Amino acid sequence: MQQHESLYRVSYADTDKMGRVYYANYLVICERARTEFLRDVGYPYRRMETEGFFFPVRQCSVRYFGWAEYDDLLVCRSSISRMRHATLTIATEISRSGEDKTLVVGEVELACVNADGKPPVLPEALREAVKGYVKG
Amino acid sequence: MQQHESLYRVSYADTDKMGRVYYANYLVICERARTEFLRDVGYPYRRMETEGFFFPVRQCSVRYFGWAEYDDLLVCRSSISRMRHATLTIATEISRSGEDKTLVVGEVELACVNADGKPPVLPEALREAVKGYVKG
Amino acid sequence: MQQHESLYRVSYADTDKMGRVYYANYLVICERARTEFLRDVGYPYRRMETEGFFFPVRQCSVRYFGWAEYDDLLVCRSSISRMRHATLTIATEISRSGEDKTLVVGEVELACVNADGKPPVLPEALREAVKGYVKG
Amino acid sequence: MQQHESLYRVSYADTDKMGRVYYANYLVICERARTEFLRDVGYPYRRMETEGFFFPVRQCSVRYFGWAEYDDLLVCRSSISRMRHATLTIATEISRSGEDKTLVVGEVELACVNADGKPPVLPEALREAVKGYVKG
Repeated sequence: MQQHESLYRVSYADTDKMGRVYYANYLVICERARTEFLRDVGYPYRRMETEGFFFPVRQCSVRYFGWAEYDDLLVCRSSISRMRHATLTIATEISRSGEDKTLVVGEVELACVNADGKPPVLPEALREAVKGYVKG
Repeated sequence: MQQHESLYRVSYADTDKMGRVYYANYLVICERARTEFLRDVGYPYRRMETEGFFFPVRQCSVRYFGWAEYDDLLVCRSSISRMRHATLTIATEISRSGEDKTLVVGEVELACVNADGKPPVLPEALREAVKGYVKG
Repeated sequence: MQQHESLYRVSYADTDKMGRVYYANYLVICERARTEFLRDVGYPYRRMETEGFFFPVRQCSVRYFGWAEYDDLLVCRSSISRMRHATLTIATEISRSGEDKTLVVGEVELACVNADGKPPVLPEALREAVKGYVKG
Repeated sequence: MQQHESLYRVSYADTDKMGRVYYANYLVICERARTEFLRDVGYPYRRMETEGFFFPVRQCSVRYFGWAEYDDLLVCRSSISRMRHATLTIATEISRSGEDKTLVVGEVELACVNADGKPPVLPEALREAVKGYVKG
C-alpha cells in the first residue's frame, strides 16, 4: 500500500494561545493533503466539481498524539482507509518533517454526490486511480 | 451621530501563539459587527443578497492600539465613516466590555454591486436606514 | 439528563464555496458551545487555565447529517457523553433555531492536564458541577 | 528594487459562500508570504522570537482589485514599502500564477518589540538583510 506525501508549513494563523496548532485546523491541513493527493492521481477536486461531482464530508475524526507548532514543516501521508460504493475514507497521518512520530491522524469520509441527481457512485476511473493507496 | 453596538466573545480559535487575537481575525469580528448593524437597521445582509445586491469589500484597514485575549467579551461600535454613490465605509471600534480604551479599529469599504448588471448604486432605502450613523 | 444550550450565528467567514459552513468550522462552534457550558456550570475555562489545569483535545469526531448556511442562528446542545478519571467527552448537537433536525454532532474528548506535573485527574468540583449533564 | 516571491495554493477553507477567498484570509496569505520572505533573507521569524524580538502588527490595509478562487495557485510578491527606526512595512502583491493582473495588495506595518524592555529598534542585521527589497 502506498501513501501520498505532501508538505505543509504551519503559519501563525494556525496556532492558538497554547502555542500549538488549534485542534480544528488539522482538518484544514487534511483538506489540503487530500486535495494534493487527488490532484497527483489525476483527479483534481476542482475538475470533479466542474464535471458535476461533489464530495461533501459525511463524518470525520481526529486523534491527537502530539502537536505541531508555529513554523513546523509537516509531512502529511494520505491513503484510503475505506472505499465503498459511494464513499471514500481518506486517512492523513501528520508528522514533523524528518521525525518518525505521528502527531495527528485525521480520517475523513467523503460521500460522492452527483449534481444531476443520478444515484451517487464513485466514478470508476477515480476508483481505479486511487486503488494503489487503499489500506490492506 | 449614533453608533451601533454588538458583543463578541473571543474564542480559542481566534487566538494565536502570542495569546492574543490573531491580527486578521479582527476583520472577522468586524464582519459580524456590521452584519448585526445592518440587521438592526432593517437591512439583513442575507436578504440583500436574495434581492440581488452584493457588497464585496473594496478595501479595508485595521489599526491596532491594544489587543484582545481569550474569553474577553468585546464591544463592537459600528458607524458609517463615509457614504458615497455606490460605496459604504463602515468603521468598527472594538474595546473590552466595561473598559474605555479602544483596542482595534477596523474600516471596511463595501461596494454595492447589482447581480442584474445595472449600474451599481446604494439602495435609497438602505441609505435612509443608516443615515443616523453617518460620521460628522 | 440535561443539555446545555447556547446560540451561535453563522458568519460569512464560517462558510465555504459550497455556501455552507466549512466542515472544520463546526469544531470551532463546538469549542464555543463547551466554553459557555463550562462557564454556566461555574467552571470558566479561562479560570481553570489560571489555576493550572489545561484540557487539550485527545480526539474528536464530527458527524454531518445536514448543513448550516450563512446567517443561520444555531442552537448548540451540549452534554457529557463520557466522564472518566482524567478525561471528559463533551457531545454537542447543532441544529437550526426553531427546527428539530440535528445538522451536526461533534464529540470532543478532553484530557485533564495539570501544569504542576501531578498525575492528571478531573477536579472533583468540576465532576460534581457537570454531573447533571452526563448521558444515561 | 527586488521582490520576494512565494507561492500559495487556495484551499476550500479559504473560500466563502461567494466562491472566492474570504476578505480577511488574504492577510493570512500575506503572513505566510512575509514569513517566507524573512526566512529567505536569513531572518526566520521563529528565530527572532527565540532571540527576544517580536513583531506585532501596528496597522494593516488591504486593497482588492480582483479575487482568488478555490485551488488557484497564487504568486505573492513581497517588498518593503517603508523602513523606519523601529517599524517595517511589508507590502505583498498577490496575483494568479502566470497572470499579470494584481488581485490584492496587502500592506502590514510591523513594530519591533524587545522582550527585555530595551527601547525597540529594528536589528541592524535585519535592516541590512532586507535593504535590497526596499521600495524606491
